[in-house]
Amino acid sequence: MPRRIITFLSDFGDTDWFVGVVHGVLYSLAPDAHVVDLAHSVPPGNIARAAFMLEAAAADFPAGTVHLAVVDPGVGTDRRALAVAAREQWFVGPDNGLLEWALGAPGAEAHALTEARFFRAPVSRTFHGRDVFAPVAAAIARGEKLAAFGPRVTDPVRLPAHDPVRRGDALVGRVVFLDRFGNALTNLTARAIAQAFGPDADDAGFQVSVLDRRISGLARSYGDAPVGALVAIIGSSGRLEIAQVGGAATMRLGLGEGDAVEVRRRS
Amino acid sequence: MPRRIITFLSDFGDTDWFVGVVHGVLYSLAPDAHVVDLAHSVPPGNIARAAFMLEAAAADFPAGTVHLAVVDPGVGTDRRALAVAAREQWFVGPDNGLLEWALGAPGAEAHALTEARFFRAPVSRTFHGRDVFAPVAAAIARGEKLAAFGPRVTDPVRLPAHDPVRRGDALVGRVVFLDRFGNALTNLTARAIAQAFGPDADDAGFQVSVLDRRISGLARSYGDAPVGALVAIIGSSGRLEIAQVGGAATMRLGLGEGDAVEVRRRS
Amino acid sequence: MPRRIITFLSDFGDTDWFVGVVHGVLYSLAPDAHVVDLAHSVPPGNIARAAFMLEAAAADFPAGTVHLAVVDPGVGTDRRALAVAAREQWFVGPDNGLLEWALGAPGAEAHALTEARFFRAPVSRTFHGRDVFAPVAAAIARGEKLAAFGPRVTDPVRLPAHDPVRRGDALVGRVVFLDRFGNALTNLTARAIAQAFGPDADDAGFQVSVLDRRISGLARSYGDAPVGALVAIIGSSGRLEIAQVGGAATMRLGLGEGDAVEVRRRS
Repeated sequence: MPRRIITFLSDFGDTDWFVGVVHGVLYSLAPDAHVVDLAHSVPPGNIARAAFMLEAAAADFPAGTVHLAVVDPGVGTDRRALAVAAREQWFVGPDNGLLEWALGAPGAEAHALTEARFFRAPVSRTFHGRDVFAPVAAAIARGEKLAAFGPRVTDPVRLPAHDPVRRGDALVGRVVFLDRFGNALTNLTARAIAQAFGPDADDAGFQVSVLDRRISGLARSYGDAPVGALVAIIGSSGRLEIAQVGGAATMRLGLGEGDAVEVRRRS
Repeated sequence: MPRRIITFLSDFGDTDWFVGVVHGVLYSLAPDAHVVDLAHSVPPGNIARAAFMLEAAAADFPAGTVHLAVVDPGVGTDRRALAVAAREQWFVGPDNGLLEWALGAPGAEAHALTEARFFRAPVSRTFHGRDVFAPVAAAIARGEKLAAFGPRVTDPVRLPAHDPVRRGDALVGRVVFLDRFGNALTNLTARAIAQAFGPDADDAGFQVSVLDRRISGLARSYGDAPVGALVAIIGSSGRLEIAQVGGAATMRLGLGEGDAVEVRRRS
Repeated sequence: MPRRIITFLSDFGDTDWFVGVVHGVLYSLAPDAHVVDLAHSVPPGNIARAAFMLEAAAADFPAGTVHLAVVDPGVGTDRRALAVAAREQWFVGPDNGLLEWALGAPGAEAHALTEARFFRAPVSRTFHGRDVFAPVAAAIARGEKLAAFGPRVTDPVRLPAHDPVRRGDALVGRVVFLDRFGNALTNLTARAIAQAFGPDADDAGFQVSVLDRRISGLARSYGDAPVGALVAIIGSSGRLEIAQVGGAATMRLGLGEGDAVEVRRRS
């Protein structure tokens, strides 16, 4: 078997020892795996943010990757724990919407984690990342089948969809993430834009509106305009971003999550 | 030999290159080890904080783990360097109290690091994490015996004990750590509580007092009460924590390290 | 082949998923490598800072290490991408000065990255760390020769030199980095000091001036003076540092990058 990658996304931050302990569990139980941190900076309990980050990152990993995601404000309550097979990868985490991207995939198969023989004993009241989710992720990396962990789940918790909508001649989306560089990522994927305007649309033929600004054409790089100019560009996870050349669009415009962004053909 | 885990705890932060350089030394000298960061966010020179974090985390790692800990304000002075075998694990770091949890274990065996052939040459004046401690940790991971590094030490520097004390009908402890989620961890371990009140005590039978608040019973999860309620719960490292359902107890109450927390039976 | 170390330095920070995705690419393509993060806290686009950090850290890694460095404000423009063999190591990154330490070495050999068969397809407009640089770093770790990636480059972008200068009886350098502990690292290397004053100069025979302060002698450790005293010391990367015993020299003196530091013999 090839060496599997286990990614790890959480809201554990970097001031405590929780991330390290989970690495220890993973390497103890799956010594040949590579553990890769996606991020642990998710604001505590922010499931939607983490679900977006998992969606944006997971597609870049190879088939066979195991994604461990723990943003789990309901730890210790009766919320279910899940393992999901989808998109030729695996996803392990609480049943609270965090695994939305996996669950929304065609053919996704979700199982509840009920077989305690896979868990650390005793299972604590507060740290299922260590005691439940990491051991299961490691077991998957070792080749365990999902059915071993518990029964099939057909009604997992889902997040509300926030797809772009057509309004007149415009495709209207919204800002969903502000990255470190001051770029505003939107839910306007290259695919959604192509579906709305046709696959033959030319980059130069678009106009993007955000707040009271209009940006003509899609840029070919962050540097594809004079310093200080705003550009719209398809970013690395295939989403339209608003950026400022040599600057931070989010600060220049005061852009925030939820702000509307419109794409239309230039007249 | 199984692939050993080497954990790494320090006050190096994440703005410099010091952590990466230590990883490089470890992987150069112990290529089959897994290096796991516990945390590097310890405030510079805060030995007691780091000693607590090491204690809270180390118990979660398997036998055979090597713990490298570097909070070393005395680097380059005549403070000794230590390797300690305790609790079926190894601990490497300066002789300044950082390894308290290991040194307090029954049968702990400490050796001074004096055999320069294990060190990087030349040893710098300011970075023994790279030049002394990491090479020794790697050598232990490769199977070297402690006696090879230098003579037995029987008078290592110890931290003052801060165990809970019995006062009337109460067991009185204190807050020892504020975690990222706003939970206040105390030194009231499940074991100390069982010793004080008997192993048959029921969770519901306790009352916990902190500042001017009283909390009835120990919770079974962070969500085991209405949003906004304070709960007392045995956390993931076996210590009583004060938490707020869906919030941050430390902010709600203004809790800080050292604040007294009392446990008694409900009358 | 031994297990290679691939270091990774960037300005990606820790709030997004970009670092994790690059780890995923590296481990996918070079499963036997060890990926070591140098730092991702470089201020966005600060090439000179990152070039200094790479210089300070790389010398501590063994021959054969591959250094991946991505501070790339010109991503997607016509700036070249480079792989450089120098100092028995490899360096991969944009042609913007980031690899200065490698390029300044005797016998350094730089190649442009033009052979798209090594890249992820399609190459995004905004994330060549993932699509170009990481795949090439992984290929080097697997044993690929530099000539395979593209033509030799003889005019790479270089950073202006900031070597210390002789002024009268003093060697004048400047503060180039403020570390987490409040130490001010200078460009006055032990080697430059030895060249200026002779290799037989005694530590006690120097006087260091910074702002309006004078420090007598070079210290043997951070603790080699009373608490609160300023000391000058050769630090772990071989550079003169200004430190305060038990404190933070940068805060005590208000030291900043660029401030002049002078070394002379005591009269």
